[in-house]
Amino acid sequence: MELRTVLVVGTGLIGTSAALALRKRGVRVLLADRDPGAVRLARELGAGEEWQTGEGQSEGPAEQVDLAVIAVPPAHVASELLELQRIDAARFYTDVASVKVEPLHRAAQLGCDLASYVASHPLAGREKSGPGAARADLFLGRPWALCPTEDSGPEAKAAVLRLIELCGANAVEVSAADHDRAVAVVSHAPHVAASAVAARLTDATDVALGLAGQGVRDVTRIAGSDPGLWLGILSGNAAPVAAVLEAVAADLAEAAGALRALAEGDGTATGEITQLLKRGVAGHDRIPGKHGGPAAPYSVVQVVIGDRPGQLARLFQVCDEVGVNVEDVRLEHAPGLPLGIAELSVQPDAIPTLSDALRERGWQVP
Amino acid sequence: MELRTVLVVGTGLIGTSAALALRKRGVRVLLADRDPGAVRLARELGAGEEWQTGEGQSEGPAEQVDLAVIAVPPAHVASELLELQRIDAARFYTDVASVKVEPLHRAAQLGCDLASYVASHPLAGREKSGPGAARADLFLGRPWALCPTEDSGPEAKAAVLRLIELCGANAVEVSAADHDRAVAVVSHAPHVAASAVAARLTDATDVALGLAGQGVRDVTRIAGSDPGLWLGILSGNAAPVAAVLEAVAADLAEAAGALRALAEGDGTATGEITQLLKRGVAGHDRIPGKHGGPAAPYSVVQVVIGDRPGQLARLFQVCDEVGVNVEDVRLEHAPGLPLGIAELSVQPDAIPTLSDALRERGWQVP
Repeated sequence: MELRTVLVVGTGLIGTSAALALRKRGVRVLLADRDPGAVRLARELGAGEEWQTGEGQSEGPAEQVDLAVIAVPPAHVASELLELQRIDAARFYTDVASVKVEPLHRAAQLGCDLASYVASHPLAGREKSGPGAARADLFLGRPWALCPTEDSGPEAKAAVLRLIELCGANAVEVSAADHDRAVAVVSHAPHVAASAVAARLTDATDVALGLAGQGVRDVTRIAGSDPGLWLGILSGNAAPVAAVLEAVAADLAEAAGALRALAEGDGTATGEITQLLKRGVAGHDRIPGKHGGPAAPYSVVQVVIGDRPGQLARLFQVCDEVGVNVEDVRLEHAPGLPLGIAELSVQPDAIPTLSDALRERGWQVP
Repeated sequence: MELRTVLVVGTGLIGTSAALALRKRGVRVLLADRDPGAVRLARELGAGEEWQTGEGQSEGPAEQVDLAVIAVPPAHVASELLELQRIDAARFYTDVASVKVEPLHRAAQLGCDLASYVASHPLAGREKSGPGAARADLFLGRPWALCPTEDSGPEAKAAVLRLIELCGANAVEVSAADHDRAVAVVSHAPHVAASAVAARLTDATDVALGLAGQGVRDVTRIAGSDPGLWLGILSGNAAPVAAVLEAVAADLAEAAGALRALAEGDGTATGEITQLLKRGVAGHDRIPGKHGGPAAPYSVVQVVIGDRPGQLARLFQVCDEVGVNVEDVRLEHAPGLPLGIAELSVQPDAIPTLSDALRERGWQVP
């Protein structure tokens, strides 16, 4: 299945990123968005050309594209699909919304053609939104869920698989219901939990905030995202997210109850807390490592660095000289001081070589 | 107040790190631990010499040190303090446990001398524990809470302030009760929430885990920590942590209820969800930036890199050449592919210079 022309409807972060990826692979891309500014910006970024025939033009578009990618909020996917199909805009259709059951259900209700449509969802995102945050490699190596139904035609599925391939993502075939339950537990409910933890900081004292460390920063990072965008996602996956949140709330209420009992001298309550902490470790350990397989056993070398230009260049120069591959790097800055620690993740057997080389060259390796 | 000799009781991560920091500043350090292996390892790491007189020797120690640092789990602080005071081990005493009210309360109950003792707590830690994970700069620029009571003598307070200074930390004076409420909200309750989110992953499908992105990784990172250690911390601060968890559980239960109502067609329920998401953003925005002040408005340049030696050295070499200071760096690896993105945080006005310089030298800057 070759895709020569693709129409992207909705030039936000995801739509524009897909357009950029397709342009890089030589696909002709047409762009549409309700917001003329968004489509203009996407075009200026090199994401394609403006679609010449849109809503309300009963004659239909000037040409039929191979695939239309509907990149609009979940609640608008079905009506957009219906409109595009009415004017025969494309041979095949997909969408990229974060939820799948509800848009499919509405598409069926509205009488859309389900043979030419296969729903999908790239698991890629950023804390920023809009075409300005788009990048051609947003999907590189990321999972991209594909949710065919029994109505989906094989050619439609092949077209969406080709889209995923052109974007450099890994197709994961899954039913819409399984998809929605999955993202409820690995994305949507964690987001709400992060918001609830962050919400507690609104009435914390300045002294309390001054005692905040890396842990609470990590837990609450995603709570900084756009509430409007997330309301749409959560609303579209309401029942599965509710089920996960009920379980999390119950665990937290039980932990709170056990801690209250402990505070009143009931030492037997420690069992429930230990169980929750241990289940947390077990769940944490199931998350695949960054290369997609099990978490690799990297070891960390810590190096004291100055917070000024050139330090990192010199540090990585040493790694290069001794042939050590840095798998990951993390900078920890000391609040208020022009000093920090660089944590370099390397293969465990590279530790002695690298540590010795750094020390010989005057680096402080604690 | 000069500290010539300090006794560190408990050579785990915190105790050994403090010992290493003191040794670097020329302080004589004596080490004690119930576990002979731990104290030997700390000594071999250069943290000091073994304390010659310990428990059960009724004659008392060979010498009285200036300050004893009690670095044992919260439940054992008071009994350790009593024992050390019984043999006149030190002129002044502090502890470094993560909770403060309960150990102080028990010390008073046991009849410890409270004039020579000032409780404290360095806000520094790592996911690893034990003397092997210790480092002299663990406390550099970090907050270190100091909790004097009305019984505390001024000299004892001066001794602990000098300890904090020698370790390179920033003293934050706060009452024990305020401290415990603060760490409940910025550390202890977030930890339990992370565990409860991670616990949901234990019965998720492999497909669901395959769809996990960076968000759930961040939210659950601290859930991988040692349950035994955390049971001790949570037990020692049970009531304040319970209060925060009750509020978080109530917010999550309410969000779940609103989502259930939405799933059943009650559109008015969106208000509650939006409110929680907005409170989350407000709380998130109160966390100070990494340099201790408000979060700095760094901009991010993304560069495609290969996952092999030398790439980062060359990348930072370019930053160095054009005089751009990299404030932070984050590597995003594409699962299953030998490619990744380096995200360089720099001052916003350095973006054009750096992007142009990188592109000129053939780097892919999306």
